[in-house]
Order: sequence, then structure tokens, then C-alpha cells
Amino acid sequence: MAERRAVPTMKDVAREAGVSLGTVSKVVNGIPVGREYKERVEAAIQKLEYRINSYAKGLKSSQTYTVAVMVPNLISPFFARLVDAINRELSARQYRMLFYATDYDPEQEQELVMLAEQQKVDGIIVLSYNPNLKVSEDVSLVSIDRYFGAQIPCVSSDNYGGGRLAAEKLVENGCKHLAFLRIGSKLTNEPNKRKDGFISACEAMDVPYTLKIVDDYTPYAAFEGFLHEHYRDGKLDFDGIFCVTDSLAHQIVVTLQTMGVRTPEDVQIIGFDGVRHFGDLELTCSTIVQPVEEMAAACVDMVLERRTTKMASLVCLPVSYAYGGTTKA
Amino acid sequence: MAERRAVPTMKDVAREAGVSLGTVSKVVNGIPVGREYKERVEAAIQKLEYRINSYAKGLKSSQTYTVAVMVPNLISPFFARLVDAINRELSARQYRMLFYATDYDPEQEQELVMLAEQQKVDGIIVLSYNPNLKVSEDVSLVSIDRYFGAQIPCVSSDNYGGGRLAAEKLVENGCKHLAFLRIGSKLTNEPNKRKDGFISACEAMDVPYTLKIVDDYTPYAAFEGFLHEHYRDGKLDFDGIFCVTDSLAHQIVVTLQTMGVRTPEDVQIIGFDGVRHFGDLELTCSTIVQPVEEMAAACVDMVLERRTTKMASLVCLPVSYAYGGTTKA
Repeated sequence: MAERRAVPTMKDVAREAGVSLGTVSKVVNGIPVGREYKERVEAAIQKLEYRINSYAKGLKSSQTYTVAVMVPNLISPFFARLVDAINRELSARQYRMLFYATDYDPEQEQELVMLAEQQKVDGIIVLSYNPNLKVSEDVSLVSIDRYFGAQIPCVSSDNYGGGRLAAEKLVENGCKHLAFLRIGSKLTNEPNKRKDGFISACEAMDVPYTLKIVDDYTPYAAFEGFLHEHYRDGKLDFDGIFCVTDSLAHQIVVTLQTMGVRTPEDVQIIGFDGVRHFGDLELTCSTIVQPVEEMAAACVDMVLERRTTKMASLVCLPVSYAYGGTTKA
Repeated sequence: MAERRAVPTMKDVAREAGVSLGTVSKVVNGIPVGREYKERVEAAIQKLEYRINSYAKGLKSSQTYTVAVMVPNLISPFFARLVDAINRELSARQYRMLFYATDYDPEQEQELVMLAEQQKVDGIIVLSYNPNLKVSEDVSLVSIDRYFGAQIPCVSSDNYGGGRLAAEKLVENGCKHLAFLRIGSKLTNEPNKRKDGFISACEAMDVPYTLKIVDDYTPYAAFEGFLHEHYRDGKLDFDGIFCVTDSLAHQIVVTLQTMGVRTPEDVQIIGFDGVRHFGDLELTCSTIVQPVEEMAAACVDMVLERRTTKMASLVCLPVSYAYGGTTKA
């Protein structure tokens, strides 16, 4: 059964410490006071379990200890993991997180960025689908996966390296003809580089490849059509497929099953992201794992340091390959 | 390429409208001013795309338009969906969400509730694992899935009804001997009622059942042992299993596969939650679906209305059955 109790106020702390309210306020705001006073206030804060109202404190010091985080939604397991990791990084630094879902809506994103700016957050971390996002000069903003130009720092996986790694792993596992499947935004963004890395590795290894690239609005049936077109005499034209996400890889495995094509015996499949069943069980497929914790730490470091001019405009963090049952190793 | 631009301030609005700063402040804070002044200020706000700083406004009106939301993590797809839905409800009402992950840590939960109280949020929505959570009388708090007593409103699925429904569906699909498997907190919480509802339906239908209930700290191997114990002459002792979550159902299906037991041919399995692959693809198993959107709306309604004394202390929202491949229908 929960107890109800009163929240201690700054006044209670002053009474307990036997000092004025002004003294408590100074200690709380880091303004120097006599050592004995400071100790008395700190002891009272501890005894009463008083928590500093950083909300009010924020306005005074023009720091709010608050960072706004914006991603399209929390339904996608990759976004959810990313926000979870960013939240842990912020908490460890005593910062609060305001969370906004943007629903892939460019206008909504612009609106939310402006709102956050005016609410004086200390920074904004955004995974944006708005290529024309306007950002105030006053605000510290870090972008995930979309490079806006040198003035806005961007954190991303090494998508190019991941594309290369996927092609290399498939060939290492014996594949002779590869395919790359992609559904996604037409906007230039970092994940586009997965394809470029894949092609570059295929060409370096002199391995033939086939591409099927469609935009967000294309129904999944386009991939079913593609697979059927490339299915002749009970055999697929390719024996290795790299899918742009684990989610697409999962759907392709299910479609191939209905066609009687076995994974990984007949065709090996590699996804991208590193999504696990129910967040913490086995991997959903063999995959290129994004370093989510490292990306979160980089975003938080960069957004709080505000070293916009000094720092790299694009930070690409290393990915890794993980076996998840849809390849031979 | 993103443009950098200055954020308009209240001063800019005053200049544009040709009024004093005080007049702008009054309009923004809903204090009556002459009609012409009001219209000029509103036109300037619109023209400059000025966003009201509800952060500063909050302190003045003692409302912050902010609700703190606390769940263990965003890794679990059910928690992530719930927070996503609560976020949508809050946004629709022009409220902001402060998000906190508690990591199932009772001390952390208490700490965060106290912090949120002192930061003057308008309310707290918490999915708590702290049975002794202390809450200030001043704060509007709604609990999800844990009933603390009449003074703290609680929102939950109809877990009891869900347990009954699972047993009934298994029997409807031809099962003759059922099992219920649960891993979870020993603390009394709403999900416990899934078992009670299941047993009540089995007894009403006069169907034999077997229970395997372990606490959070028990390794999954306990369920593997249980399944092997009940596997004789190439057959399981039961032909229908209700698992306390979809995550457990998924693991059981995988274990049975390795034992050569087929789902749903040899044994039918129903989970609980309604989790979809990658958040928006097919269901992970046949399941009792929690009404996440309705739960989110109820939490937000209740936390903002603060009708603590007038309102129901426990709101149980209706669940439904959905076929997801691990049953015959």
C-alpha cells in the first residue's frame, strides 16, 4: 500500500538548517556561501530528502537540464532501443528527456523543433525525415542518420562499411550471386550508403549482384513480385540476399518459405540493425548490428558539449556482423 | 541543407504588434487585455511563428503542461508501444512528456517519482515494481498494472477476463488438457489475475490443467525441464498452453520445436499482450491482445483530470483474442 506524504520544500530545508531561504537558494544554485552554512544546508537537504527543483533552477541559470529527443515512433524496435539508450545516457548525466514522436511528418518535426527551442531545452537530438529542417543558431542540435551539412553534427552507424561487410560475409559463406533489397525514404540519408558499400564490395570481389530498390510508399508485394520473377525451375537466381533492415529480412524469409525456398540452405539472408525477438531474446536474423549504445553516447556527448564548430560534422560508428540463423555461419 | 535562423522572442512579438512586452505577456498567459491589443498580439505571434514558452508560462500559472511517464524500459515491445500511445495522447492535448526508464528498480522508481513531484509536473503515469511507492498528496499519479489501494487510480487490461478467454479459446479449438506457464514478479500485481481467470475457466469447463509458475529470477531452463518432464512416449501431457506473455509463448514454441513437438498440430499455444513482429508486422503468436490505445487514453484522462477521489480506483479495459498461427483458429 502506498503512503501519501508531503514533498519537502526549500522553506522546509531553510527551517531545518536554521538559515534563510536565500542561503538555501544560493547553495542549490551553486553560488558560494560560508562553508558552515553550506554544510548545514546540505545536511538538511539530505535529511529531508529534498530534491532540487531543477525546473525552477533551470530558468535561473538558463540551463534546464533537459534534452528533447525526437524519433518517428517507439513501435519500431530500432527506434525504441535507441531512445532507451539515449535515456540511459541522459539519466547518467542527471539530464531529463522530453520525448516527442514525429510520425515521419516533416511539418510536425519542424513544429516540434521550434517548440523545443522556445522551451529552452539544453539540446535536441532528432532522427529527422525533414530535409529542409530549420534550426535556430542558439540551439544545440544533433541529427541521427541524416546529414544536413557541416553546421549540424550527425551521428550514424558506418552504413557504408556495413553494406560492404554484408556482401563479404555472404561470399565468405559460399554465395555466388547476391541481391540487395531496399525499401525506404527517397531522401538522401545515411542508410542509403548501405547500398553503396554493398555494390562496392561486390565489384571488388567480382561477384554478380541484382538490386531491387523501392520507396516508402511501395507495397511489400513489389518484393514478392521480384522474388517470383527471379524464381526459375525451382531455384532462385541468387543465393545470397542483403536486406536494408532486419524487418525486411524477416518478411523476405516468410515469403521465401511460402515459395518453398529454404533459408539458409537455398538462400542466405543478412539484415541490418541487430533487432532481437522481444527486445532481449535471440536475433531475428543474421545481421549487421548497429552500435546503439555507442550512438546514444555520441549523441548525448555532442549535444551537451555544444562544440558544434570544433567537432566532426559526421560521426560514423563501427558496425559488426552477427550470426542469427539465416546464414550458414 | 538546413537553414539557421533566430528564434522569435516575446520582445520581437511586442515590436511587431506595436505593444508593450507586458501586453504580450498578458495575452500569452490568458490575462484579459483590450480586444484590439489581443488581436494585434495574436497576429504578430502567427506572423513570426512565435511559440509560447510554456516552460516559463508553466511556472507562472503553476501548470507545466508536462507529464512524467515511467516504465522499466523501452526494450520490451509492450512497454514501448504503451509509451508511444501515451505520447500520442499527451501530444493531442498539447502536453509534453518527460520520459524515465526505471529498470525495474524500486529505489530508482521512488527517486524518480520524488524528482518529478518536485519538478512540478502536472502528473505522473507509472508502471511500477515498487509495492511501497510513496506518493505526495499534491501530485496526480496514475498507476498501470499495479493496484496500490483506493487512493491511487490504476489502469489495467482485464487480465482476469483475458485468462478466462485464453482457456475458453483453447478448449473451443479442441484442447483436452491445458497448461499455464508464468514467469514474473512475485509482487501482487494485475497480471497475476491472468492465472486466476485461467483456473476459473478450466474449473467451470471441467477441463484438467497443469501450472508452472516461477519468479523473475528463475532461468528459462526451468520451463525446458517442465516440458521434458511432461513429455512421454513422444507426446506432451497437455495439448493447449496459455503463456503469461507473448515473449514466453515465443520461447516455448522454439523449445517445443527442438523437442519435435509441432505447434499448432500437436499443441496449441496462446500468449498475452498482442506483440507484433517489428512492431507492425504479423502477430508473434495467437494471443490475448491488450487494448494499448485505450489504456493510454484512460491513463492520460485520469492523470489530467485529477479526480482522484471521485474516480474508479481500478479501471480494467477489455481484451480480445487474436489468431496468430500458434493455434488451430
